[in-house]
Amino acid sequence: MAGISKILDNNKKWVSSRNAEDPEFFQRLANGQQPKYLFIGCSDSRVPASGITGTGPGEMFVHRNIANLVVHSDMNLLSVLQYAVEVLGVQDIMVCGHYGCGGVAAAAANKQYGLIDNWLVNIRDVIRLHETEYLRISDDTERMRRLVELNVIEQVRNLAKTNIIQNAMRSDKPPRLHGLVYDIADGVLKDLNVDGGGVIKDMEHIYATEAAHKDDEASSYEGPQGDPADLPGEPAAEPAKAKKTAKAS
Amino acid sequence: MAGISKILDNNKKWVSSRNAEDPEFFQRLANGQQPKYLFIGCSDSRVPASGITGTGPGEMFVHRNIANLVVHSDMNLLSVLQYAVEVLGVQDIMVCGHYGCGGVAAAAANKQYGLIDNWLVNIRDVIRLHETEYLRISDDTERMRRLVELNVIEQVRNLAKTNIIQNAMRSDKPPRLHGLVYDIADGVLKDLNVDGGGVIKDMEHIYATEAAHKDDEASSYEGPQGDPADLPGEPAAEPAKAKKTAKAS
Amino acid sequence: MAGISKILDNNKKWVSSRNAEDPEFFQRLANGQQPKYLFIGCSDSRVPASGITGTGPGEMFVHRNIANLVVHSDMNLLSVLQYAVEVLGVQDIMVCGHYGCGGVAAAAANKQYGLIDNWLVNIRDVIRLHETEYLRISDDTERMRRLVELNVIEQVRNLAKTNIIQNAMRSDKPPRLHGLVYDIADGVLKDLNVDGGGVIKDMEHIYATEAAHKDDEASSYEGPQGDPADLPGEPAAEPAKAKKTAKAS
Amino acid sequence: MAGISKILDNNKKWVSSRNAEDPEFFQRLANGQQPKYLFIGCSDSRVPASGITGTGPGEMFVHRNIANLVVHSDMNLLSVLQYAVEVLGVQDIMVCGHYGCGGVAAAAANKQYGLIDNWLVNIRDVIRLHETEYLRISDDTERMRRLVELNVIEQVRNLAKTNIIQNAMRSDKPPRLHGLVYDIADGVLKDLNVDGGGVIKDMEHIYATEAAHKDDEASSYEGPQGDPADLPGEPAAEPAKAKKTAKAS
Repeated sequence: MAGISKILDNNKKWVSSRNAEDPEFFQRLANGQQPKYLFIGCSDSRVPASGITGTGPGEMFVHRNIANLVVHSDMNLLSVLQYAVEVLGVQDIMVCGHYGCGGVAAAAANKQYGLIDNWLVNIRDVIRLHETEYLRISDDTERMRRLVELNVIEQVRNLAKTNIIQNAMRSDKPPRLHGLVYDIADGVLKDLNVDGGGVIKDMEHIYATEAAHKDDEASSYEGPQGDPADLPGEPAAEPAKAKKTAKAS
Repeated sequence: MAGISKILDNNKKWVSSRNAEDPEFFQRLANGQQPKYLFIGCSDSRVPASGITGTGPGEMFVHRNIANLVVHSDMNLLSVLQYAVEVLGVQDIMVCGHYGCGGVAAAAANKQYGLIDNWLVNIRDVIRLHETEYLRISDDTERMRRLVELNVIEQVRNLAKTNIIQNAMRSDKPPRLHGLVYDIADGVLKDLNVDGGGVIKDMEHIYATEAAHKDDEASSYEGPQGDPADLPGEPAAEPAKAKKTAKAS
Repeated sequence: MAGISKILDNNKKWVSSRNAEDPEFFQRLANGQQPKYLFIGCSDSRVPASGITGTGPGEMFVHRNIANLVVHSDMNLLSVLQYAVEVLGVQDIMVCGHYGCGGVAAAAANKQYGLIDNWLVNIRDVIRLHETEYLRISDDTERMRRLVELNVIEQVRNLAKTNIIQNAMRSDKPPRLHGLVYDIADGVLKDLNVDGGGVIKDMEHIYATEAAHKDDEASSYEGPQGDPADLPGEPAAEPAKAKKTAKAS
Repeated sequence: MAGISKILDNNKKWVSSRNAEDPEFFQRLANGQQPKYLFIGCSDSRVPASGITGTGPGEMFVHRNIANLVVHSDMNLLSVLQYAVEVLGVQDIMVCGHYGCGGVAAAAANKQYGLIDNWLVNIRDVIRLHETEYLRISDDTERMRRLVELNVIEQVRNLAKTNIIQNAMRSDKPPRLHGLVYDIADGVLKDLNVDGGGVIKDMEHIYATEAAHKDDEASSYEGPQGDPADLPGEPAAEPAKAKKTAKAS
């Protein structure tokens, strides 16, 4: 048996074993999801999200793409993130990379693979940001393992750059951001401790934004503003808006 | 124990139990992935990809987003698809929806949720395409279940519209496209039999394209073409290119 | 003289002639922009936005892409649209196609061009939606001209599907949506009169959404909702949310 | 007269004046486009592409978005780029920013504007890359003007990171990349001389890729490769592929 028949057959066996273990298993799930976790991981077949995290159905919202990237203008991931944070209210958000990642290896190499090349440039940008550290690692395997970690750290930072996360951080129940790396060779999930390590705080002077006030809030649109002198694009208004002023002087 | 500590603890238990069952489990995986399946499913926490398909680590490449959508210009999914088909050579590609999908329900309702609204418009487009059938279903639950199925069917069609799939279909090992629906209430995976049902064939007169010839192939660029009369944008050249001609006359 | 030198030289001549005509021309512009128009047109070199609309600097915000497409999940265009509507308060939004469009011709033909194929699928979707009318046009040139118009109409519809436009429509100064076609052969801009023609109204039963209430508004996030029974994904809640109910029964 | 009527009226006057000047003007354009330039500029109403470059209809292919950004995974811009370079064979590609850019000012400030915030993060990334230089500029206006220039430089680099440009560079007629800044206050276009300045060369050790060989080329797919040991994702293969090896040791 192969192809889709195998999958359908596997599914029947899984349903039977689940029902045998716990006759009310499926009924409980049908009542809705209240996941506490959001998992952003790699599409790699060797990194099954629920297995490696030991989470059961209903516990973890999941997005998986090539090399677990968080791209600023990617509506696919941003939709997942907005829904998970603002509608479902997840409490822990994990970016999970893995050693031996084919996408990371491809980005570190100089071969072209087609359309995916454009996606992988995001990882080359991580190399650029950390070039000094990256190039100093003389062992090939070690350098590639470190790139996997650096990539996870930068993707957690990319989460922290979104207005979705920044606004949620000011709520009563701010979500926690985590960077994890999974080791295919032994199954262990390592916490990079990005939150405690200050990798987000370090960037706040560049990326932090304040939510618009209730009464001039862009997203609850009530017609164009009365005073165009406040608009960006007005050279006169620029200095007042430049939050760098204080630090630079 | 809660938050990330619980996940890390779960992971330790999982590693132990895996090693107890099969001491060489992880070592085998470290040698690389050769997945035969690509799974495109919903981010919903109640639809764990590997569980419901009974696939183990190494067997299935996975992408999950809100409402298992395949959007033509979504570089996130297209990168997954191109890598899975052209580099990994997966043989079976599944779009897997599920009854009780929150994204589909949100699209069928008229409330706004923020940024995700733009993503969900893709599902409203499915309603438009199948409005006659959709509106004739008087039972609310039945109508919503049918929308989940119609959404899966259209996403399989969206796969078939890509040059990635169309070119792979002409290879020695053409992949198979499947539309599946998972029922949260009983765990069963249903095959919508889209391939046999002609849902792709029906659209070929509109969407089929031919790969460029080796010697004028766009992707292996060798400088601009010599003869601008062949370029699109030349009104004179349009009639010759219009593949509709024969059918229309 | 060629290449960038020619452009820089052209620019000098333009500055001189502008200053000769009106010595305060540039100074006035430096005080900020308050454009009344947003123009969404094709990248085609023969369709210069300001020329064909007779608008001067400061009057029209502009986005141009291949075949003037409005794609639901395209953050590039959505950012332009949100800024133009919510920050600048533009009053007239034009989607402007043009006869002899290379992108439209390429979509109607069956050749592959590479990465752009994925973008052009959006035009093949327009063919699918209007297949009956499209195929009945026996003359090749006429059929292609009609496809250009149908494409514009569907892109105006795509604008009307966004929460940006839907919310602006409920403001004191609702913007107007226009579909235009430019004829390269005689320079004339034709108004397709989409607004009066009901092409947006016709779709409201599928696409209309209501803004979230101030006190539960997703975009001014104040933590996850208290009552998970209201969330989509809850099968129990689906029927109440299905706006189709009334029409279907 | 206002709204769309004014535009249509402007258009009639423009057609008349064009025909008066040159009765065959439109007829020549109808024969097709062979633009030599691609212009990537800002949507700002005060930066009309053809005016400031002195180019007439038929000479310049145009893309305009908020803050003239080149985003790696933006199918909108990538489609424009691929078509312009591979099909039309443009020879000079300009990224054109402008002083007084509202998008750049918004990114340097800390207010939220809604959906566009995600787009603007790309500019905050430019600040991060050039933080040392940026923060040392004490004058507010000067710092903002420099950010406009740095943003243009990074967007030119983003072009150079694409496989589209890298492959075109190896063709008989390699396109030239230019970074320009337009000054709204005096109309002058300044060439940042990015090409001569080495801003692309400086990054080649990170971003350069080689096209796939004809016989194993991903884009002319001929079935999955026979030897999975060549695939990325194989830890064993990583060291051989890491182009960093030589430099690092």
